[in-house]
Amino acid sequence: MARYSKQDFPLDNVRRHLEPGPIVLVSSAWKSETNIMTMGWHMMLGFTPARFACYIWDANHSFEMLRRSRECVINVPEVALLETVIGIGNCSGRDGDKFARFGLRADPAEKVKAPLIRECYANFECRLADSKLIRSEGVFIWEVVKAHVARSPKAPKTVHYRGDGEFMVAGSTVKRRALFKPQNL
Amino acid sequence: MARYSKQDFPLDNVRRHLEPGPIVLVSSAWKSETNIMTMGWHMMLGFTPARFACYIWDANHSFEMLRRSRECVINVPEVALLETVIGIGNCSGRDGDKFARFGLRADPAEKVKAPLIRECYANFECRLADSKLIRSEGVFIWEVVKAHVARSPKAPKTVHYRGDGEFMVAGSTVKRRALFKPQNL
Repeated sequence: MARYSKQDFPLDNVRRHLEPGPIVLVSSAWKSETNIMTMGWHMMLGFTPARFACYIWDANHSFEMLRRSRECVINVPEVALLETVIGIGNCSGRDGDKFARFGLRADPAEKVKAPLIRECYANFECRLADSKLIRSEGVFIWEVVKAHVARSPKAPKTVHYRGDGEFMVAGSTVKRRALFKPQNL
Repeated sequence: MARYSKQDFPLDNVRRHLEPGPIVLVSSAWKSETNIMTMGWHMMLGFTPARFACYIWDANHSFEMLRRSRECVINVPEVALLETVIGIGNCSGRDGDKFARFGLRADPAEKVKAPLIRECYANFECRLADSKLIRSEGVFIWEVVKAHVARSPKAPKTVHYRGDGEFMVAGSTVKRRALFKPQNL
């Protein structure tokens, strides 16, 4: 398993890690309990503040923990963690602690009570920014309040779910900075 | 440029093409005008009906066209179209028709007035499902009402934006169907 050396990451660049659409692990804490869920339905909503939205099915054990605590950490795994990512999606927090079950280490966050997953290359501490869509749409709108990202790799091998048990793994990097109007980067 | 042979695609599988998080081209039609915009901020919201959400900045020329027409087509390009994708993001529909400017062909859709972009491997015809978040959040919620997807490639080389002019190109496919609980596929 990769060991990451993480550093503070500028909040207005969070899109670099979430906009490509990776599968993420959402960690949460409520009362004495922590939990982790696998999630693929999310999108950026703004740069400054760094806001993004995600859809969470209300049958998930995490749903009420997130709604009540109004906090989470979005953790981004690489492909080396794929079996764990699937395993986390296969079981419920009702059946026991997933950190222990999957041998993941919970590092303390700075601004929220939900833990950082050490084995993920990036961790984004989030506070609920808007709750009005939770009941009607299952949509949570978050503000990222603290970001931790590994110094390397520069091109993380994220996994992107295609459904039916199939993942796309992040491939080559293409740089086209010179083609952009500066305000559109 | 790839020529795609497209066929009808089941609506409840649309997530296979949108959940991985590719950059898409949104085509629209309003009165006698058509337009295209480049978009990376979107997420799935449901399988049946196939619903998804996207964020659109209200300064974009497409914003009012989409809001008024209540229709769009989500077109998914491959990396061969990358320079076009960037070019479309660099200019505004106010400055002329982007189909002509970029040599793209507009095929008629079946259920909406917005055109399909022939040079994209997948086209999803959409109707606005919920307008209540447009003004406050810039979020459009769509229902996909017709899907056209190329028979091949099976693993399209989609592009995923990392910001700062840098794209990740879809890499290898990893199949892990046997590890999933059937209800979680």
